Amino acid sequence: MSDSPSTPAGLLSSITNPGDLKRLTAEQLTLLAAEIRDFLVAKVSRTGGHLGPNLGVVEMTLALHRVFDSPRDKILFDTGHQAYVHKIVTGRQDGFDLLRQRGGLTGYPSRAESEHDLIENSHASTALSYADGLAKAYALRGEDRHVVAVVGDGALTGGMCWEALNNIAATRNRLVIVVNDNGRSYAPTIGGLADHLSTLRLNPGYERVLDLVKDALGQTPVVGKPVFEVLHAVKKGIKDAVSPQPMFEDLGLKYIGPVDGHDQQAMESALRRAKGFEAPVIVHAVTRKGYGFLPAEQDEADCLHGPGSAFSVETGKLLAAPTLKWTKVFADELVRIADERPDIVGITAAMAEPTGIAALAKKYPERTYDVGIAEQHAATSAAGLAMGGLHPVVAVYATFLNRAFDQVLLDVAMHGLPVTFVLDRAGITGPDGPSHYGMWDMSVFGVVPGLRIAAPRDAETLREELREAVAVEDGPTIVRFPTGKVAPDTPAIRRVGQVDVLREGAGRDILLVAVGSFAGLGLEAAERIAEQGYGVTVVDPRWVRPVPIELTGLAAQHRLVVTLEDGVRAGGVGDAVAAALRDAGVSTPLRDFGVPAGFHPHGTRAEILAALGLTAQDVAREVTETISRLDAGEVRV
Amino acid sequence: MSDSPSTPAGLLSSITNPGDLKRLTAEQLTLLAAEIRDFLVAKVSRTGGHLGPNLGVVEMTLALHRVFDSPRDKILFDTGHQAYVHKIVTGRQDGFDLLRQRGGLTGYPSRAESEHDLIENSHASTALSYADGLAKAYALRGEDRHVVAVVGDGALTGGMCWEALNNIAATRNRLVIVVNDNGRSYAPTIGGLADHLSTLRLNPGYERVLDLVKDALGQTPVVGKPVFEVLHAVKKGIKDAVSPQPMFEDLGLKYIGPVDGHDQQAMESALRRAKGFEAPVIVHAVTRKGYGFLPAEQDEADCLHGPGSAFSVETGKLLAAPTLKWTKVFADELVRIADERPDIVGITAAMAEPTGIAALAKKYPERTYDVGIAEQHAATSAAGLAMGGLHPVVAVYATFLNRAFDQVLLDVAMHGLPVTFVLDRAGITGPDGPSHYGMWDMSVFGVVPGLRIAAPRDAETLREELREAVAVEDGPTIVRFPTGKVAPDTPAIRRVGQVDVLREGAGRDILLVAVGSFAGLGLEAAERIAEQGYGVTVVDPRWVRPVPIELTGLAAQHRLVVTLEDGVRAGGVGDAVAAALRDAGVSTPLRDFGVPAGFHPHGTRAEILAALGLTAQDVAREVTETISRLDAGEVRV
Repeated sequence: MSDSPSTPAGLLSSITNPGDLKRLTAEQLTLLAAEIRDFLVAKVSRTGGHLGPNLGVVEMTLALHRVFDSPRDKILFDTGHQAYVHKIVTGRQDGFDLLRQRGGLTGYPSRAESEHDLIENSHASTALSYADGLAKAYALRGEDRHVVAVVGDGALTGGMCWEALNNIAATRNRLVIVVNDNGRSYAPTIGGLADHLSTLRLNPGYERVLDLVKDALGQTPVVGKPVFEVLHAVKKGIKDAVSPQPMFEDLGLKYIGPVDGHDQQAMESALRRAKGFEAPVIVHAVTRKGYGFLPAEQDEADCLHGPGSAFSVETGKLLAAPTLKWTKVFADELVRIADERPDIVGITAAMAEPTGIAALAKKYPERTYDVGIAEQHAATSAAGLAMGGLHPVVAVYATFLNRAFDQVLLDVAMHGLPVTFVLDRAGITGPDGPSHYGMWDMSVFGVVPGLRIAAPRDAETLREELREAVAVEDGPTIVRFPTGKVAPDTPAIRRVGQVDVLREGAGRDILLVAVGSFAGLGLEAAERIAEQGYGVTVVDPRWVRPVPIELTGLAAQHRLVVTLEDGVRAGGVGDAVAAALRDAGVSTPLRDFGVPAGFHPHGTRAEILAALGLTAQDVAREVTETISRLDAGEVRV
Repeated sequence: MSDSPSTPAGLLSSITNPGDLKRLTAEQLTLLAAEIRDFLVAKVSRTGGHLGPNLGVVEMTLALHRVFDSPRDKILFDTGHQAYVHKIVTGRQDGFDLLRQRGGLTGYPSRAESEHDLIENSHASTALSYADGLAKAYALRGEDRHVVAVVGDGALTGGMCWEALNNIAATRNRLVIVVNDNGRSYAPTIGGLADHLSTLRLNPGYERVLDLVKDALGQTPVVGKPVFEVLHAVKKGIKDAVSPQPMFEDLGLKYIGPVDGHDQQAMESALRRAKGFEAPVIVHAVTRKGYGFLPAEQDEADCLHGPGSAFSVETGKLLAAPTLKWTKVFADELVRIADERPDIVGITAAMAEPTGIAALAKKYPERTYDVGIAEQHAATSAAGLAMGGLHPVVAVYATFLNRAFDQVLLDVAMHGLPVTFVLDRAGITGPDGPSHYGMWDMSVFGVVPGLRIAAPRDAETLREELREAVAVEDGPTIVRFPTGKVAPDTPAIRRVGQVDVLREGAGRDILLVAVGSFAGLGLEAAERIAEQGYGVTVVDPRWVRPVPIELTGLAAQHRLVVTLEDGVRAGGVGDAVAAALRDAGVSTPLRDFGVPAGFHPHGTRAEILAALGLTAQDVAREVTETISRLDAGEVRV
């Protein structure tokens, strides 16, 4: 136990595993919930992390662990950032001082941390598919276990959930699906489903839900048929309270709810009923993101969804001084371009604020589409918009575009449609860990015929390359940049074709190709190499796919080519440049630096890059060794 | 017009564009529908192609073109293999003699063929997303056009459709969604949705539907509430006939139906009502796959979904002699393995017959899961099954696994789960054209850490490598093989580590690495090169990811390495071997042959490979030229 003053001296310190929860009284549970909220705010305000979602699932998580027997029963959290409370009650309170820091607790479930954890990644809408598989396996093997999946209403906008529901509905396996309905993912949940859930939410099956919704929305609930049905069922007793609900029932799924997710007894009662049902059943819990912490409840943007660093407990504001971020540079330039071009429209997948699309939405709401957590639809509806004569800009985190590879390949590229994908958080991102690293894009999307990929190195090149991207008329483009503070301005000495020369070597020894934000790393490494007496030319290719023809010409004039990229080496820019040299008959040897294929642990971006040998010192040392070997007469590196 | 005796002399020959349809009487339309069915059977029985789906949409397609004004209005066909009738009435009757043959009509819509075509690819569940984008673009630009999307009930099991419906429901754009409900994709449609559609289908809003369903299912329809609502609405008049339907209405979508899709007048009437509705609306049309052609109607497997080559008009059976196919080798071996290992389970995405999973399903139905057209769910539910202690074998076409890249990367590989993906129709497939080419897998999935990829070269190595794949316990595997007849047996001379040596060179000139089914091509090329006096060793690496360590050792002993793969060059095995040589400090130059990045037109597999220079003659010539340049003292190729 840490000695930090925020460490709970009360009930919480006595909870080291889920079994401890089962002995508590109703009063103690209420007290514990309050202690957990204090703990969450105290810890996350120092480390940063996902706050709003976890404040919303305190009672739900306690109820889950009281009703089910983890790890015998399997509790799966969709978008695992809502698993902090689960971590707190499964013996990991101490770890929160180093939450999301190198060597410390991960921000998502982790099998290495606990036998209570199963799903380690953080892409939304997967839990129901896992649950279907687990429930089928237990049924086939005759194992007497329960499977519970907690999924947000936001995640339900993802197609995977519907694929899973369609399959689950065809089974008679024991599977409890808890819909954690707070009306939002990052932003309020969109679409027909959200409207439908709102209607359900406004049907006061329970008085507390009514109050909660009134509080939250300031609206008078509409009373309709489902209310009657729910109330009717409640009157008829427990069995019938597994009541019909049109949408889910049409799929063949039983439904319990709506339940006030902050009413411990109501949640437990609903879960117990669901547990006793020998078939899949949905428990619809209404919660409030940020519940119990005023700055979160009052944060209209995202209920303090995930402050990236320490914040004030009083105001909810980040303590770090604001900096100019890549996202802001993009957002501002997009609005300027949209001012000039009425055909520019924006698409976000439930992340208008984090991707900067919110700036466009503010000025041009009718030209901005939030499609929900639905990257596939984002890509193919963009194809439709482009067919209709518009130029869509789809802004997503790099890691999430992987969800739409097939759509980008066939629906967009094969049709030669002008769609610009803007990939924020590309490369190694940091505290969110391996499932958030945007390190695959240059390899995976690098195979897409006709797709052009730009990797700007600073604010000015981001603006420039974004403008070049939206000027392309015959196919898709990607503009990718990392997370956080924008890199310092790095002006070019001259431009050769489309390649920027950032540094001229005294001699023609080494051509260093630095991709995007690695320009600074490349220049620093070049200085160190030059100190050893070698001439180093540093270039930024600006557009890395297709490989600029100028690179092969420059390579032919040097003794060694070095590539440096913030992406996976396999199939990356290094491989592509090597292939271009082979095809052009250029025999200059090549040495490529990038992220090794692997699922690398979390930490700060700098820590991870250092661990991967992607520092100026490491690069300089290895390059110097390589060219020394060439000097010694070895043909190849 | 062709002089073929099957060329229609009647009404059909007078139809050269959709406008011609609008002048026909009801009697003439009936006659025309019959002529079109005769035409389809006559043509497709000679060329092969998608028959069953097109026989089912004759009246629907005529109705669409009579009610809407293509190309001003946009008609989008999901899974474009149902667009033959559309092609027939848009001036392309002559093309059917060369259907799916090199230089002839494509099997899907094609913008190069007609201004009436929009979506060129053939992966299911995309049309609603395109339609949402198009409708939004027309709304924003103030263009007065209608957008119509035709989607099968099978495609509705794909998550993309739900993402799209959720978004469409939030709009007030004019968008008509025709659900072509024949109860099947290849196989009968599965899941909760299918059950729900069956219920709707059994509600006889129209007497003809009743008869049709009775004929088709031999069941007595259940009469429930929705029937009453539909009938009630019909009585109240046209406006109200846009009637409520629980599931779609929950999403906020209006619904018309069910309509007998083979009743020309009923279809037109429903479409006219939908057209007049100033918001998205669903028209639920019940059709029968293979309608009007007895051998198709009676084919229980897939209603003559897509005979690959010429067939008998009397029996529906293929005329070509049956051959041993890759699929059959896999299917038989999988059953043998399942006999031995009770933990082996199979997953198919609505394609049990074409992928061979049907053999497992027949013997072990409780160990086989058909998830619908839902590759994402296939992958992640397989992860769940593996977590539950089973070893799932997911059998899909190579091109379709692209849909699940993110799920394979994170949900399976990051969790180190033992799931075997069997990719049928890998590489260049042929008549289905570019969206069906399984040429991306070795590059795209090649970046996935911990994923092993095997490419068997013949029946024996397929059996062997499949067994090696299911023996892996710590991560996913891919076993990939091409379409059609299995390659001739090619025994190894010896095995070096995991690499099979297929041919020993007289000298140590060239190491030719032939991937999978390209073994025969490699051996033939080697013979031709050897005739020029060079020593050529041919090896099959068997497992191409990770690159076998033995390859670098062998490469170091030769003067030139040549790789030969049935996949896209970018990021492929050639690039990976080159990177392995760089990393190992092996300086032997490398020349890689594979499929250039591009969307290559359809034809036979042999024709396309020849067009791409992937013949023994071409490879031998280029390799000989390359090594001659090395002989002449050029350092690099």
